[in-house]
Amino acid sequence: MTFSTTPRASSSGIFVSFEGGDGAGKSTQISLLADWFTRAGHEVVVGHEPGGTEMGQTLRQLVLHGEDMSPRTEALLYAADRAHHASTVIRPALERGAVMITDRYLDSSVAYQGGGRDLSADDVEGLSLWATQGLLPHVTILLDLDPVVGVGRVGRSLDRLESAGAEFHERTRQAYLGRAAAHPDRIVVVDAAGSVEEVHAKVVAAVAERLALDVPASVAVVDPGA
Amino acid sequence: MTFSTTPRASSSGIFVSFEGGDGAGKSTQISLLADWFTRAGHEVVVGHEPGGTEMGQTLRQLVLHGEDMSPRTEALLYAADRAHHASTVIRPALERGAVMITDRYLDSSVAYQGGGRDLSADDVEGLSLWATQGLLPHVTILLDLDPVVGVGRVGRSLDRLESAGAEFHERTRQAYLGRAAAHPDRIVVVDAAGSVEEVHAKVVAAVAERLALDVPASVAVVDPGA
Repeated sequence: MTFSTTPRASSSGIFVSFEGGDGAGKSTQISLLADWFTRAGHEVVVGHEPGGTEMGQTLRQLVLHGEDMSPRTEALLYAADRAHHASTVIRPALERGAVMITDRYLDSSVAYQGGGRDLSADDVEGLSLWATQGLLPHVTILLDLDPVVGVGRVGRSLDRLESAGAEFHERTRQAYLGRAAAHPDRIVVVDAAGSVEEVHAKVVAAVAERLALDVPASVAVVDPGA
Repeated sequence: MTFSTTPRASSSGIFVSFEGGDGAGKSTQISLLADWFTRAGHEVVVGHEPGGTEMGQTLRQLVLHGEDMSPRTEALLYAADRAHHASTVIRPALERGAVMITDRYLDSSVAYQGGGRDLSADDVEGLSLWATQGLLPHVTILLDLDPVVGVGRVGRSLDRLESAGAEFHERTRQAYLGRAAAHPDRIVVVDAAGSVEEVHAKVVAAVAERLALDVPASVAVVDPGA
């Protein structure tokens, strides 16, 4: 069947998503990039998926700790979570001109469900595009890291997805890299194996270049310890 | 975008859905039809949507009594509810040869969300077909009733959908009748304005004819008071 497509909503804000496996450093890098945008005078809203809204928390609990469910049920719950996050958090932020940074978005669903389980990547992507009325980030930072290194960094007990094994992680990584290759205008692959400062510098350079931002030297100089 | 379609699963059971507005008598007629199939020697499973599973109850609460949400979020939650009901209740029942009767299924979503709100009927139908891997009832009984009569019969406080007004109910009714006209091989319109016994007799006649059942006289004679 065919879904009707709708154009991306026009907005004056900046929409950035971070992708990558657990332990790749998304939280740290998002915090640093949010500070960087704040110092540059922007309002910044930081969100995450799944579970970035009150309702989303309920949905996330159902997926991770609820009854066994089919891959389609799981994909629909993640899509509902994204639809709610997009309509109640992301779009309002963009419409008032803020910078919206989200920890995981559409590419996570495609990489984890379309690339690592039994659903087609096209179906999972189509579901997300329908859920969000085609809302895509201006730039997506893919923090790429050897999955074995990433899992070791997490520092807490692993949930169902995390413990699904090395093969699953490697398949997910390859799915992410495939997404990046297919969407070079939106997705930037950043090697996440360096120091926090090194990775942050790469992230800022990528974001500034993709958004054609004018980066003042005082803002571009990075000091995460400050 | 285009979703891949999958063929209906082969099964030896019988799948019947009931549709219609609130107060049309679905619960009563389902109970009578279930008794009728039981007397004929069938295992019968009765379900309902939304909320026909434990997880579905949580989703139903979110839709009816949770945060405000966009029509797409709502449609995705209903689709997840249906996907879970289909994969954990309906398909297992059909695979072991039972009669599965469900109070509301795909046509409810199309009539209420595709016909009465801001989503296209094609999108809502496509979502349900994807959620269930194309599982459709062998026969759908549409209990058709003037909405004003139906609302008066409910006999309890109305929830958000129910109280949305007469215009909404009339639009939904027309959407249902449009579905029936478009799917005459599956959907049978039964006038629900008669007595319980009269309507039951029509339901049995419709089901028996559509399923090409051999109806023994002792089973076909209807006495709901027995």
